[in-house]
Amino acid sequence: MLSDLDIARAARLKPIETVAERLGIPPDALHHFGRHIAKLDTAFVREAAKRPQGKLILVTAISPTPAGEGKTTTTVGLGDGLNRIGRSAAICLREPSLGPCFGMKGGAAGGGYAQVVPMEQINLHFTGDFHAITAANNLLAALLDNHIYWGNALGIDPRRVSWRRVLDMNDRALRSLVSSLGGVSNGFPREDGFDITVASEVMAVFCLASDLADLEERLGRIVVAQTRDRKPVTARDLKAAGAMTVLLKDAFQPNLVQTLEGTPAFVHGGPFANIAHGCNSVVATRTALHLADFVVTEAGFGADLGAEKFFDIKCRKAGLEPAAAVLVATVRALKMHGGVPKDQLAAENLPALRKGMANLGRHLANIRKFGVPAVVGVNRFATDTPDELALIQELCRAEFGVDAIVCDHFAQGSAGIEALAHRVAEIAHAAGALDGLGFRPLYADELPLWDKMRLIATEIYGASDIIADQRIRNEFRELQAAGHGGLPICVAKTQYSFSTDPELRGAPSGHVVPIREIRLSAGAGFVVVICGEIMTMPGLPRVPSAEHIGLDENGLVEGLS
Amino acid sequence: MLSDLDIARAARLKPIETVAERLGIPPDALHHFGRHIAKLDTAFVREAAKRPQGKLILVTAISPTPAGEGKTTTTVGLGDGLNRIGRSAAICLREPSLGPCFGMKGGAAGGGYAQVVPMEQINLHFTGDFHAITAANNLLAALLDNHIYWGNALGIDPRRVSWRRVLDMNDRALRSLVSSLGGVSNGFPREDGFDITVASEVMAVFCLASDLADLEERLGRIVVAQTRDRKPVTARDLKAAGAMTVLLKDAFQPNLVQTLEGTPAFVHGGPFANIAHGCNSVVATRTALHLADFVVTEAGFGADLGAEKFFDIKCRKAGLEPAAAVLVATVRALKMHGGVPKDQLAAENLPALRKGMANLGRHLANIRKFGVPAVVGVNRFATDTPDELALIQELCRAEFGVDAIVCDHFAQGSAGIEALAHRVAEIAHAAGALDGLGFRPLYADELPLWDKMRLIATEIYGASDIIADQRIRNEFRELQAAGHGGLPICVAKTQYSFSTDPELRGAPSGHVVPIREIRLSAGAGFVVVICGEIMTMPGLPRVPSAEHIGLDENGLVEGLS
Repeated sequence: MLSDLDIARAARLKPIETVAERLGIPPDALHHFGRHIAKLDTAFVREAAKRPQGKLILVTAISPTPAGEGKTTTTVGLGDGLNRIGRSAAICLREPSLGPCFGMKGGAAGGGYAQVVPMEQINLHFTGDFHAITAANNLLAALLDNHIYWGNALGIDPRRVSWRRVLDMNDRALRSLVSSLGGVSNGFPREDGFDITVASEVMAVFCLASDLADLEERLGRIVVAQTRDRKPVTARDLKAAGAMTVLLKDAFQPNLVQTLEGTPAFVHGGPFANIAHGCNSVVATRTALHLADFVVTEAGFGADLGAEKFFDIKCRKAGLEPAAAVLVATVRALKMHGGVPKDQLAAENLPALRKGMANLGRHLANIRKFGVPAVVGVNRFATDTPDELALIQELCRAEFGVDAIVCDHFAQGSAGIEALAHRVAEIAHAAGALDGLGFRPLYADELPLWDKMRLIATEIYGASDIIADQRIRNEFRELQAAGHGGLPICVAKTQYSFSTDPELRGAPSGHVVPIREIRLSAGAGFVVVICGEIMTMPGLPRVPSAEHIGLDENGLVEGLS
Repeated sequence: MLSDLDIARAARLKPIETVAERLGIPPDALHHFGRHIAKLDTAFVREAAKRPQGKLILVTAISPTPAGEGKTTTTVGLGDGLNRIGRSAAICLREPSLGPCFGMKGGAAGGGYAQVVPMEQINLHFTGDFHAITAANNLLAALLDNHIYWGNALGIDPRRVSWRRVLDMNDRALRSLVSSLGGVSNGFPREDGFDITVASEVMAVFCLASDLADLEERLGRIVVAQTRDRKPVTARDLKAAGAMTVLLKDAFQPNLVQTLEGTPAFVHGGPFANIAHGCNSVVATRTALHLADFVVTEAGFGADLGAEKFFDIKCRKAGLEPAAAVLVATVRALKMHGGVPKDQLAAENLPALRKGMANLGRHLANIRKFGVPAVVGVNRFATDTPDELALIQELCRAEFGVDAIVCDHFAQGSAGIEALAHRVAEIAHAAGALDGLGFRPLYADELPLWDKMRLIATEIYGASDIIADQRIRNEFRELQAAGHGGLPICVAKTQYSFSTDPELRGAPSGHVVPIREIRLSAGAGFVVVICGEIMTMPGLPRVPSAEHIGLDENGLVEGLS
């Protein structure tokens, strides 16, 4: 099979006006970025909000393994498949980060015959949204240090500055540094550091804001530091929110591209799935819902993190009602959950597969707790045997009461995913019938923060309890007392296990979840609970892929995938 | 009079296809960024290079003062004026930096009725070129520290890393820092710092490269560090040039916008005028010359720095032949050069004006040394008296043998600058007739570096000599010995005086120019000679303009000018 880049390059893209027309978007609502990328005008986005909404389909996955699952390709394939069977569908994805492109992997725009295009631009600067977010984040940082420099009227404690600068780059040298060195004219030296742009709270704010006014309001609420007597200092105190909003106003317009088969794709925003909620922007999802009958979207990591945050943060806050969920699994990954090492995945192994199904089962049970009907999409690999595929289907039906549908969109495009498309359309139209109640978040807003976290751990992770030092318990109490108790929880933990031990595959039970840290994201509107080491600035590997990326003799990019 | 922003917003912009059509650019050669901004396709740029070239007009200025001169508005106005009198003209400007927008001043896209539009986008992210340059610069930095981290096979001395990271932000806290702190997994701590993006050598390379292959070649030559035994380490050694070129390939396409009167304007690249050469990109200037009969461009700071570098670096290296120069002056600025303090500039003062004319005269004499015919453009202010304007015209004719033409483009647009346009067209067509020789750089490539610098100081600055410590003299010798003796010199000194003392206005003579530092920019292809304090990362003022920038109730930007 051809490489992703070769397939993408061989594709004959439609003019973006033609793609937009499928959704009834008039040409004058488009701000072009070349021939195949456009942003949707703010006035059109506002107007579209008056139309009825289509059905929202979440694509999520079992706990990720090094074997690979294929959440993005399934999202793309399902959108194409729904169009193929005569439904009007659009997809919503996150924008890829530039940093990782030059590190380990190539791009992040799907793969095989299930890609969004033009993949080179999407993987590189795209429409500049992440650069705008970087600039807004760093303007706030510059205004903060500038305020301290010119007299510090707000009384900011330089030891308690929590706001970090960001770059869209994998650069470990910037994780921890001492800034403002070099004498009087450079300010007051303090400990400081950079995160990667996708880890910025500005990114999370951008993805949760409903419109520009809400964006500015949320940016103003961001807490950047504390005073000597521990009072929070916000972006509003620094008069930063207006200029930050100006930097973000064009970026805030949803980006429209297309899949290889011409399905409209909104690729907009891209927050981390650990210290943030890992979903594309609310404004893109909402707009897509007003324009298509079906909107297929995904959420970062496995369903314990991705789907839970999608439901409890994004859907709760944006008033979205997901109609169905697709749980993506692969034979290979399930065998890994059943204990097979990576180098032995090619061989048939029914006992291990049966054992690994426990992971899938737990995720299915979890999704049911939100009242959302689910179907399993088995993303086919060449090494899968007929007996393995049959076993998954049999167990799904017998033990979990759902269908598992084998999909081959990676190799065949929409022709390989028709069956899943039909099933999704069917259950989405019957949504609410699952238990007569329809979608609901896992917990009520009023539940105290500690109890929310405990509920997520016990109900979703299968843990027996959560534990934390007295200091952290006090911080929970302080946030509660400061009026933040009504916020949802955003858990940061390993994506590889239901527990906090990445080596513990399958469906562990009765473990205890230790809480290391708690952080308020007042602008985004959630409380981050950190259960493990969270890396907010990746590094580059020994041989970065940057070394092999370049232009060939025809001026075409090589090495990007 | 209305504010710049109000004038810009009230303008009825033409679709960019219509502007392009004036230059014979077909619609399919445009990559749109919304309705009023486009990049020119690389294939078209290559094709256009086969057409005959128009006349290149440089707009430069007397030594700047706090009174203001108006080089950019004159460039814009003259382009409009040439079109008004029936010539086909385009203008070439630098892109504004984002950093200063949020600091002292507003934008940098001209002013009054001589602006390039859409000014908000041009002043904010525009087409993302500076973000791409930032990313390329910082990828190189990340690859460098990553190389050291993974074993340092090249033997880089971490104390001798000269490559700094950049942000397009005024942020003094980043000038000097210690990076890679925090333990083994973050690398080897070292002294480090950030410059503003316009100070990056990548920016200078971007603006001097002739095509993508040359760009990659130059990027590869950038020296980033030295080994323990003082051998240079380049971007090529780090295998960075290919990926950097990929990051820059779209940005490298010239940007096309328009003036308020619809004159085509190429706004592309924007290197510092101190540690770099301060001109827009060679690719934009060349392309414009192949498409218009007249191309009006400007160079940073006064003519001693701007014009000298434009002639000796840009024109020499790109094979450009400037046909005429306009020296911009104002009554107010000339009075300041004659000793009048800023708060007394409104009053008529003929003796001070006469005295200040010495500054203008020196610049005119300098331009003549390059064989370029000049005319003086007097940028009119409301406080100028008829006698003051007459005195400038009389002295220019009598003492310097050139015409001084009063221009009122700021208030009137092209109608206020017709006379200058006629005169420029006239002398440009007679170019070469000045002394029968035509344009030539000040010095030959073969002249040793030290002698080049001495010649600039004596011929252009009116100095008696240059001096430097033995250490710096040795560095001159080392660069010469290493084969860099054929490069031109890029002087970094105060723009406020012919001397190195910013307080010394007028036309000082016989001073000595002390050299503090010398730096090789091997990618850009020049040797920077630093004569004074050079700030490569500005700070924000006590009350940054960011505090007043925001969106009004209609979603329009306010406070940007």
